[in-house]
Amino acid sequence: MSLKVYLSGEIHSDWRAEIIAGAEGLNIEFSSPVTDHGASDDCGVAIMGAETDKFWHDHKGAKLNAIRTRKAISEADVVVVRFGEKYRQWNAAFDAGFAAALGKSLVVMHGADHQHALKEVDAAALAVTETPQQVIEILRYVLTGSLPK
Amino acid sequence: MSLKVYLSGEIHSDWRAEIIAGAEGLNIEFSSPVTDHGASDDCGVAIMGAETDKFWHDHKGAKLNAIRTRKAISEADVVVVRFGEKYRQWNAAFDAGFAAALGKSLVVMHGADHQHALKEVDAAALAVTETPQQVIEILRYVLTGSLPK
Amino acid sequence: MSLKVYLSGEIHSDWRAEIIAGAEGLNIEFSSPVTDHGASDDCGVAIMGAETDKFWHDHKGAKLNAIRTRKAISEADVVVVRFGEKYRQWNAAFDAGFAAALGKSLVVMHGADHQHALKEVDAAALAVTETPQQVIEILRYVLTGSLPK
Amino acid sequence: MSLKVYLSGEIHSDWRAEIIAGAEGLNIEFSSPVTDHGASDDCGVAIMGAETDKFWHDHKGAKLNAIRTRKAISEADVVVVRFGEKYRQWNAAFDAGFAAALGKSLVVMHGADHQHALKEVDAAALAVTETPQQVIEILRYVLTGSLPK
Amino acid sequence: MSLKVYLSGEIHSDWRAEIIAGAEGLNIEFSSPVTDHGASDDCGVAIMGAETDKFWHDHKGAKLNAIRTRKAISEADVVVVRFGEKYRQWNAAFDAGFAAALGKSLVVMHGADHQHALKEVDAAALAVTETPQQVIEILRYVLTGSLPK
Amino acid sequence: MSLKVYLSGEIHSDWRAEIIAGAEGLNIEFSSPVTDHGASDDCGVAIMGAETDKFWHDHKGAKLNAIRTRKAISEADVVVVRFGEKYRQWNAAFDAGFAAALGKSLVVMHGADHQHALKEVDAAALAVTETPQQVIEILRYVLTGSLPK
Amino acid sequence: MSLKVYLSGEIHSDWRAEIIAGAEGLNIEFSSPVTDHGASDDCGVAIMGAETDKFWHDHKGAKLNAIRTRKAISEADVVVVRFGEKYRQWNAAFDAGFAAALGKSLVVMHGADHQHALKEVDAAALAVTETPQQVIEILRYVLTGSLPK
Amino acid sequence: MSLKVYLSGEIHSDWRAEIIAGAEGLNIEFSSPVTDHGASDDCGVAIMGAETDKFWHDHKGAKLNAIRTRKAISEADVVVVRFGEKYRQWNAAFDAGFAAALGKSLVVMHGADHQHALKEVDAAALAVTETPQQVIEILRYVLTGSLPK
Repeated sequence: MSLKVYLSGEIHSDWRAEIIAGAEGLNIEFSSPVTDHGASDDCGVAIMGAETDKFWHDHKGAKLNAIRTRKAISEADVVVVRFGEKYRQWNAAFDAGFAAALGKSLVVMHGADHQHALKEVDAAALAVTETPQQVIEILRYVLTGSLPK
Repeated sequence: MSLKVYLSGEIHSDWRAEIIAGAEGLNIEFSSPVTDHGASDDCGVAIMGAETDKFWHDHKGAKLNAIRTRKAISEADVVVVRFGEKYRQWNAAFDAGFAAALGKSLVVMHGADHQHALKEVDAAALAVTETPQQVIEILRYVLTGSLPK
Repeated sequence: MSLKVYLSGEIHSDWRAEIIAGAEGLNIEFSSPVTDHGASDDCGVAIMGAETDKFWHDHKGAKLNAIRTRKAISEADVVVVRFGEKYRQWNAAFDAGFAAALGKSLVVMHGADHQHALKEVDAAALAVTETPQQVIEILRYVLTGSLPK
Repeated sequence: MSLKVYLSGEIHSDWRAEIIAGAEGLNIEFSSPVTDHGASDDCGVAIMGAETDKFWHDHKGAKLNAIRTRKAISEADVVVVRFGEKYRQWNAAFDAGFAAALGKSLVVMHGADHQHALKEVDAAALAVTETPQQVIEILRYVLTGSLPK
Repeated sequence: MSLKVYLSGEIHSDWRAEIIAGAEGLNIEFSSPVTDHGASDDCGVAIMGAETDKFWHDHKGAKLNAIRTRKAISEADVVVVRFGEKYRQWNAAFDAGFAAALGKSLVVMHGADHQHALKEVDAAALAVTETPQQVIEILRYVLTGSLPK
Repeated sequence: MSLKVYLSGEIHSDWRAEIIAGAEGLNIEFSSPVTDHGASDDCGVAIMGAETDKFWHDHKGAKLNAIRTRKAISEADVVVVRFGEKYRQWNAAFDAGFAAALGKSLVVMHGADHQHALKEVDAAALAVTETPQQVIEILRYVLTGSLPK
Repeated sequence: MSLKVYLSGEIHSDWRAEIIAGAEGLNIEFSSPVTDHGASDDCGVAIMGAETDKFWHDHKGAKLNAIRTRKAISEADVVVVRFGEKYRQWNAAFDAGFAAALGKSLVVMHGADHQHALKEVDAAALAVTETPQQVIEILRYVLTGSLPK
Repeated sequence: MSLKVYLSGEIHSDWRAEIIAGAEGLNIEFSSPVTDHGASDDCGVAIMGAETDKFWHDHKGAKLNAIRTRKAISEADVVVVRFGEKYRQWNAAFDAGFAAALGKSLVVMHGADHQHALKEVDAAALAVTETPQQVIEILRYVLTGSLPK
């Protein structure tokens, strides 16, 4: 058994690297959005030409990023969505809804302070976690049946 | 031609009533989530029994509300999602992602200040608006081909 | 808004009649399997000819009943599955799995003594109840937003 | 030609090992649920924290196990479901219904005493067997066209 | 409950009229292919112009008829396929395969002499019958739960 | 039997009106894109605000029109696509491809001079016609089995 | 580019071997039903026990064979269906209908004498051929763009 | 991460070779239609026999080519459609519509002079480009997150 896991959401901490390192040795193929904030914001105009209007500047970039994220979510078995402490992170919630509608196994990660605001997202998830370590343990259990000591 | 339109998102202003009133005479069946905030929060425990843990209190309610929202979104032709000025509104973004994955026509409504934070949601939409009046004009145009004078 | 609700499971108590009566006035179309135990067991051979082998006797009947149950489940918005006190009721659990795979909103009804044995079924449900009254209240809330007093 | 085969149901006998051993040399990738009863029951709380209420204890575990079982069933060509002599085994019947709705080839295994109670499940199957040896012979025939001597 | 039933196959006897008459009073919407043999053969060239090559003459007609048959099968709950005594009736078997792949409830009707040749079609059916009267009884049972006296 | 028919393509002749008039008395629900050329071009900016860049002017309008056309094509049983003598009409070919991928019955209408250039589109169609009269005769035959005298 | 090709239909001539040999060097994975007539007829009872009634003897076998054929058709890019000179070959037409409903590319092979009887099947095909050599040339052209000299 | 990219449209310039060369080193599997114009036009009659009527000559060829193009589009993650300066290129627009309906990521390439005529196609795209170099940069960004210097 192998898993494809998409890591969606917060891009300002190293939670992805932590999970990928902790899952070493497991048969998992990870994917992520482009996590270079500047590249992600400006990719559309950098390649297809500048826009004077910020809306279209962002629009071109967001659509270009969608080529990557939609493929990765569509192919994933498990979609992990992390909500950090800062920013509105509507794209994380959007990814969670997208993944839920496709019937993907959704794992959500967030702090206790966001519990009430994320209740609809949590209700669609098969696991609600707080730390990368818990996600690692989930992935290990799903693939091997082994629980943490 | 007729339309089924689901009105998702903000529940603390009267935008739904404004759209429904403005669309009078058009062949549209509107649906909405339960917009009574208290009922929506407590429905699970009110019917199926109290929980000591807030997480499960919310969980029971969120799942119960999902019976209504998933049916309404799945049957809709157009999903209008409004992001208001307050709160994190992750369930609105979740609904938008859910609708997008099902191939629904997405119409987003938000103020200019949220433009950058909502760029991924806007990129998945067929129309981005700021006011209920614009949504009414869109629905009228889609059904009748008539533009505002 | 209207709902199509399929009532699956136990056929030896009057829970279906109780729910249908309690939901009077709501915009719901209910469907059920054939609940005449004898007819349900013998329908295949009664119409298509006797079998000497009990396995094929049952097989012909079960397939004939499947014409009705698959249509009803496939068209339902909500599938309510009740597990009673007696019998193994594997067909109820089969219906629950079938409904879950089709993305139907699943409502399960059973007593507390069956909680552990039904945990996988409950985990796929949007509501877990014990009484017909709770199901009625759920259907009323989903359609009208009104909670019991 | 190769096959993906999911082995669902009873976890208290060695039928899975018997089939896997007997199918040696055939191009089959087998998968199974976690068959360590204790791990399967407690995985949710072991990783995501204890629950005081048994219902939620079980709920967290059942959802976690669903990440594995849904992936395995969704990818399988053949789903073998064994009903043993003991316990209610509603999760086995749930898996059978889930597999049937996804159009998987269903092979059921049970003793003659359960024939009547399992008639709806059998009616959805492409083969009804009693022993692991028969399942092995089916898999060999499907892949190679060879029948037992 | 209501049913949509498509009556496929033999067009040289009055079995369709017999079923429709016998099902009077049941909530069923029947559909059929065009059963005027001459019109069915020549419809393509009659409307879109003559062909010198018999293959294309037939091709234009068969595609035109497909507009009707594919819609009717796609919308049907039950597809009844009758194999008569004469002709090769490959289109009947084609319809049966088409219906099976769409997950329709298949009811097959044929004489005992065709049993072996139709075993793959029968294996995909939920009921195998010999007479229109049996089909009527099946439809009545599915809709009302009543068996013939 | 009834049909939903979407009339796609050329907007500079009265072929739609001709078909709708000729099909009077048949159980058909017709739909069309907005055929007011000016409204169709400018709808986006008229409702959601002007754009300085022609690309985005057109983009807003084309997306708005897509709300109507995608709904109409998705619900249609038959999609008629007419290629006229003038303009490039790439949106007609786009609609044809969209309809083909959804498995809709495609009827194409064009003059003999476009035969070679449209061969891929014709190859996906169930009928290739030259005149509105032929389309009317096809719709009448599909619904009633009657051929023109 | 590679292709998966399922070879359905007649089992009493060596057309499959001829195609497979002629396609040597092309990136194609071929699959077929079990072509040992005796094994195919008796597989059900040989593995799962004898039946006194010929109908159920055949039924058990046909269902067992369906495990193989449905997987192979579902995974195929191209389904080649050959109708020979003898027998009714309803299973071949059934496979063609099944493949057509799944959107597979259908290639039919038959002699000119069967042209009229197979017109509905041919109308669903992307190529109608008479000889294995033509099928080989089609497969080579599809994969390499090379035509026969 | 890897990508499957289908290159649709104009066959009279070397844009495909330019993209494939520029994307060297990226994990991409490219596919294309048969770009030998003569072979593409005549493949049907070359293999399956001559036609006297040009319509059927083209029809046989177009269907044969559809075996290749439908497989390639259905498997692609990204469909790039180039509209050149000459010809009507309806098959390019047809491919774009087909890809859009399947939810593929669409990248369109055309000169500024075609902007208005292609607005509906552009509106369905995730990126609109003018040069092969831009497509290369898009593919590199999607796979690696790197932008051009």
